[in-house]
Amino acid sequence: MKYFNRLLISLLIVAFAFGLTMAEEGMYPLSEIHKLDLQKKGLQISPQEIYNPNDISIIDAICIVGRGCTGSFVSEDGLILTNHHCAYGAVQSASTKEKDYIKDGFIAQSREEEIIAKGYTIRITESYEDVSQKVLNAVSEKMTLVERSKAIEKKIKQIEKEAEDKNPGKRADVSEMFKGKTYVLFIYTNLKDVRMVYIPPHSIGNFGGEIDNWEWPRHTGDFSFLRVYVAPDGSSAEYSEDNIPYQPKKFLQVAPDGINEEDFAFILGYPGSTYRHRTSHFLSYDEEVYMPYVIDFYDWMIETMEKISESDRAVALKHLNTIERLANVSKKYKGRLQGLDRLNRVSKKMEEEKTLQEFIEADANRKDKYGNTLTEISEIYKEKRLVAERELILYYFKYHRSSKLLRYAYTIYEGAIEREKDDLDRKSDYMDKNFKLTKKYIMLSYNDYYEATDKIILREMFLKAANLLKRNTIPAISKIIEGKNKNQAIDEFIENAYKNTKLTNEEFLKKYLNASKEEVEKLDDPFIKLAKELYPTYQELDDIQKARKGSLDKLAAKLIDVKKQYKGKDFIPDANFTLRFTYGYIRGYTPRDAVYCSPITTVNGILEKNTGNDPFNAPPKVLELIKKEDFGRFRHPKYNSVPVGILYDMDTTGGNSGSPILNAKGELVGLNFDRAFEATINDYYWSKEYSRSIGVDIRYILWILQKYGEVDYLLKEMNIE
Amino acid sequence: MKYFNRLLISLLIVAFAFGLTMAEEGMYPLSEIHKLDLQKKGLQISPQEIYNPNDISIIDAICIVGRGCTGSFVSEDGLILTNHHCAYGAVQSASTKEKDYIKDGFIAQSREEEIIAKGYTIRITESYEDVSQKVLNAVSEKMTLVERSKAIEKKIKQIEKEAEDKNPGKRADVSEMFKGKTYVLFIYTNLKDVRMVYIPPHSIGNFGGEIDNWEWPRHTGDFSFLRVYVAPDGSSAEYSEDNIPYQPKKFLQVAPDGINEEDFAFILGYPGSTYRHRTSHFLSYDEEVYMPYVIDFYDWMIETMEKISESDRAVALKHLNTIERLANVSKKYKGRLQGLDRLNRVSKKMEEEKTLQEFIEADANRKDKYGNTLTEISEIYKEKRLVAERELILYYFKYHRSSKLLRYAYTIYEGAIEREKDDLDRKSDYMDKNFKLTKKYIMLSYNDYYEATDKIILREMFLKAANLLKRNTIPAISKIIEGKNKNQAIDEFIENAYKNTKLTNEEFLKKYLNASKEEVEKLDDPFIKLAKELYPTYQELDDIQKARKGSLDKLAAKLIDVKKQYKGKDFIPDANFTLRFTYGYIRGYTPRDAVYCSPITTVNGILEKNTGNDPFNAPPKVLELIKKEDFGRFRHPKYNSVPVGILYDMDTTGGNSGSPILNAKGELVGLNFDRAFEATINDYYWSKEYSRSIGVDIRYILWILQKYGEVDYLLKEMNIE
Repeated sequence: MKYFNRLLISLLIVAFAFGLTMAEEGMYPLSEIHKLDLQKKGLQISPQEIYNPNDISIIDAICIVGRGCTGSFVSEDGLILTNHHCAYGAVQSASTKEKDYIKDGFIAQSREEEIIAKGYTIRITESYEDVSQKVLNAVSEKMTLVERSKAIEKKIKQIEKEAEDKNPGKRADVSEMFKGKTYVLFIYTNLKDVRMVYIPPHSIGNFGGEIDNWEWPRHTGDFSFLRVYVAPDGSSAEYSEDNIPYQPKKFLQVAPDGINEEDFAFILGYPGSTYRHRTSHFLSYDEEVYMPYVIDFYDWMIETMEKISESDRAVALKHLNTIERLANVSKKYKGRLQGLDRLNRVSKKMEEEKTLQEFIEADANRKDKYGNTLTEISEIYKEKRLVAERELILYYFKYHRSSKLLRYAYTIYEGAIEREKDDLDRKSDYMDKNFKLTKKYIMLSYNDYYEATDKIILREMFLKAANLLKRNTIPAISKIIEGKNKNQAIDEFIENAYKNTKLTNEEFLKKYLNASKEEVEKLDDPFIKLAKELYPTYQELDDIQKARKGSLDKLAAKLIDVKKQYKGKDFIPDANFTLRFTYGYIRGYTPRDAVYCSPITTVNGILEKNTGNDPFNAPPKVLELIKKEDFGRFRHPKYNSVPVGILYDMDTTGGNSGSPILNAKGELVGLNFDRAFEATINDYYWSKEYSRSIGVDIRYILWILQKYGEVDYLLKEMNIE
Repeated sequence: MKYFNRLLISLLIVAFAFGLTMAEEGMYPLSEIHKLDLQKKGLQISPQEIYNPNDISIIDAICIVGRGCTGSFVSEDGLILTNHHCAYGAVQSASTKEKDYIKDGFIAQSREEEIIAKGYTIRITESYEDVSQKVLNAVSEKMTLVERSKAIEKKIKQIEKEAEDKNPGKRADVSEMFKGKTYVLFIYTNLKDVRMVYIPPHSIGNFGGEIDNWEWPRHTGDFSFLRVYVAPDGSSAEYSEDNIPYQPKKFLQVAPDGINEEDFAFILGYPGSTYRHRTSHFLSYDEEVYMPYVIDFYDWMIETMEKISESDRAVALKHLNTIERLANVSKKYKGRLQGLDRLNRVSKKMEEEKTLQEFIEADANRKDKYGNTLTEISEIYKEKRLVAERELILYYFKYHRSSKLLRYAYTIYEGAIEREKDDLDRKSDYMDKNFKLTKKYIMLSYNDYYEATDKIILREMFLKAANLLKRNTIPAISKIIEGKNKNQAIDEFIENAYKNTKLTNEEFLKKYLNASKEEVEKLDDPFIKLAKELYPTYQELDDIQKARKGSLDKLAAKLIDVKKQYKGKDFIPDANFTLRFTYGYIRGYTPRDAVYCSPITTVNGILEKNTGNDPFNAPPKVLELIKKEDFGRFRHPKYNSVPVGILYDMDTTGGNSGSPILNAKGELVGLNFDRAFEATINDYYWSKEYSRSIGVDIRYILWILQKYGEVDYLLKEMNIE
């Protein structure tokens, strides 16, 4: 009866709650928080405590971890709580065959034992400012579309540079909020000395692995603790023994009693990308062309890497992170395709657009101004479809998860050319402020280079390129196969290239990442030569894409204008890696016919799922603790067990990983890390029925720290008795 | 909110219902029905309407279909409703590459269009009688265990023969109710002219296929209609154009309004085997030895057959049924292993046995009589484990789903020897009353013979045999590999055997199934020679197993005695393919942490699951009907859709397939066809939480007949307006 009562009660609560409260779509920019009447929705503190432009508030405890995760400060000594999968890259870099921190986890029993999180940075939003006018002043009507795109790009770089000059040691980024329309300058503090404090073993942090990824009910302990350090004077600095823990302006109080079903909650974080303002043409391109292509290619790469990894753990370690990232995207896209289909999103969008078009045509002025907007967008996507496969192949030629050597070669070649230009004229990766990081990522990825894999993938991509229809061919590849048997020519080229390249030599690679155009030109390396052959193609493609973006951005801006007129209200901009707020309730859902999932899982589910084999191989000590019911203060009185996962209807997307889940009092009760499979549709459309995100319950995190990790000092540091 | 309300309401109902009613473990023999106080449980008719030894009652509408399914009469003209998977063998036999009834289904638009269901028989229970005393009188204390087993076997055959002599045209079977203790003689009418009436296409009848098999929520239309015919004088007869539809004593009224959550329901059927009275030694043998072996072997066979089937639909047709049957068992065993583990059944049984042993030892008399019972059982299983692999290999040498040729050869060889004996001394398969059926099944299985598959499987089995440890070797195999390279010797033997055998010739096979020992001995066929070599091994094994069975049966009878003393009450015997009654409620369950499944699915779920690819490829017409909401009178008012599957806590097992689900008034509301994955534990233990069986809702069956099949005459025949 235990489960039964739990369900019944939760449903009764849902029933009553439904009448009163309903989460709304929304990843709100900070500026919108005060408009939301949050106290009526359940917030028990003043909205100003969440965000106050004139004082310290909760947002000051939020940071960006690495290249696209969120984290939060949970102590005055720079202790950061984020996801296990967000710290994964650091853990992988620190792991060797002998010290396998991925498998075994990592515990620093004191600050001295903390080790560096290679390649990681922590960013904190300091301020923001609308710069739309400044940006748009840089364009004029007589510019071509390419000129327009380039002018905006350059203006943005200038604004960023000025801001960084004015704020020494800070980082400035201009983010586009509405395409071609609204731009905001964000100033960030950028900290570089990040260390690993507590990483659970893979069998906790990734319990359920790819099988449970994007799935609810969930039992993954997807959390890690990092700490960030600064120079003794408080300024940002690279790793040094003399550095001291960073003192955040604000840290979050952890709430050891967690949260319950139907409770109000909110999330602050840096959601990456959503596409809700895009048209049906974008959606159907994604549905019919883009996502099927990526799913097919990624699934093939995963299978290839898994086969190669089978025999040797050291080889497997080189592929683990890549496989996980590829599988994550592939499954997400499968979920989105299901959602688009189930909710009929393309035809619904088309209907909306039809109505909008009718509205436009009902007024001569409007018709004059906006009458062709949708048709023009449609034309662009029609053209894009014709060249889609070629563009995708060219994209994946340079992709860091396919052939690393080709990517290195292209970075060296393009970098040498770009770095001869004025800083502001360069592509972003090669600007002085970014180039160090570009090189760092290359050298990090070099750790995972494995020739057999690289070769097979490059061969496959060459074959794809060789099979393109005539009008879409890629000259550099055509040259290789010209007049020969395709397969044989490709095999020969590849065998020769991998035998003769020096890019597999770490020192050589490092050296030439800094080389001048002249030095690079002199190199007799098959990959560099291939990069050179490809260069004009990419130049050409760049112009085409800039022109396309120029058109689409202009059209998107017009579309937002007329939609505003039609609906008579403002919109929330799509997610764009800037700090956003979302609120909602801890709430279950019905993923499919005859199935209801309640919103809190318990450690009992770990016993149920555990098979002893990866990914369902929780540590024996954890299983013992559960069997003995050694739950301590984290026992939930109703479930008589420790909660593990929580589900809620807040609006999140990638980038929200590691975001703190806060209760009505603004205390930390969990850590966002995923969405339900059905909620991947979120990226296109917020669905009341399906949009559910997944977090680790703070009670599970604290229980693992106390009973499994036995790191009481961390609990103390977070003021948990 | 639709799902939500539905769930909430159903849970509220469950909550109130729980206090009042709770299904009990039980596959009750007919004799027990009147003891159950069923009207208090929800039955709205008199229990005598279900079973009345002196009059016609509902049980007279129940029949055995083929070799182990249940069916029921649903019209006065011998129309039978059973599962699609129960009619599968007939459909497969009738299908060719050109007329693929499996894929397309089969509809007789009139009686003339019905076609024969090859190899099918229909049996109806006419009467039963306790013959325990008669059987047990045949044994004496001074017999050896082998003698004892043989004496019981022979006595049973004598009783059956006498009964058949007394009831011409009927079939008599003695069933063992409690091992070594209770025996019941059943008299059956056996009808032989069975025809196919309505078979839905595979994409309805097996929607979800292996993926959904043993799973809830379910959307499979697992039903078929057959009709049985008799000679114009009403007697059982083989197929003839002159035959007329059989007039059953009783047929079930179909209830087009179906059934609702928490409604009372009951099932009559022929459940096959349960093992609830077995000891922990049996359970742990199954858990550790038997099931893992079978899962491993079957999964390998499935993979092998799927590979071979890939290219050619005609080849695939030869393997479909076997693959399905093997996969069904493999998944069932996986479910049972999960259940044994989750519910800790082995250690719980051990605890029960410990308590029982204490009870036994508390009294000197009891200790004297029963003190060693459990220890002796334990010893037998210890010994069995030592020879388990060898016995399993020998079993699978003769198994009709592994190498057919070896099975044919062995049947020919053994049959020739057995048929020289007196009828009652023969093994059951070769007794005059059974031998025709034995041959029929061989010739039916010959339709699916495919050399490549047969070869690979035989080779694998030889390898297994060749790898047995020394004390367990099989002489016939040792002889083949003696002194040679194992693999090479086996390959040579097999190549030669398939090249030179004549068993692949249908006429030859038919002829030698009837040949005398002398004729068979003269044959120079490699498979027959192998059978001859194996014969002494099987003779020896037979004695060993008979002795083991003799001991275990005696011990089991003692155990039941003392358990009765301990508990002070009678038990329900394990299922044994005899007619049983079970009752319960339409009821959801919680299969795992944070998931609740409600007990009625709808056609909406078909849309959700449909991918367009087998096994989720419902016919376009069905999808259209759902999208158009063309539900007619079968629209459920609450769900606003047609119910497809129903879930209930009645106690079923294999053999219950095709059993009618009856409502409180005794009307047919569904068709039992499966259990939930978690309910496979049923075979060992009835679990209130997990024991849930799955049926097709009658509304879905009728909706398909009316809207998809457009066979109104069938609806009329069942009195549906």
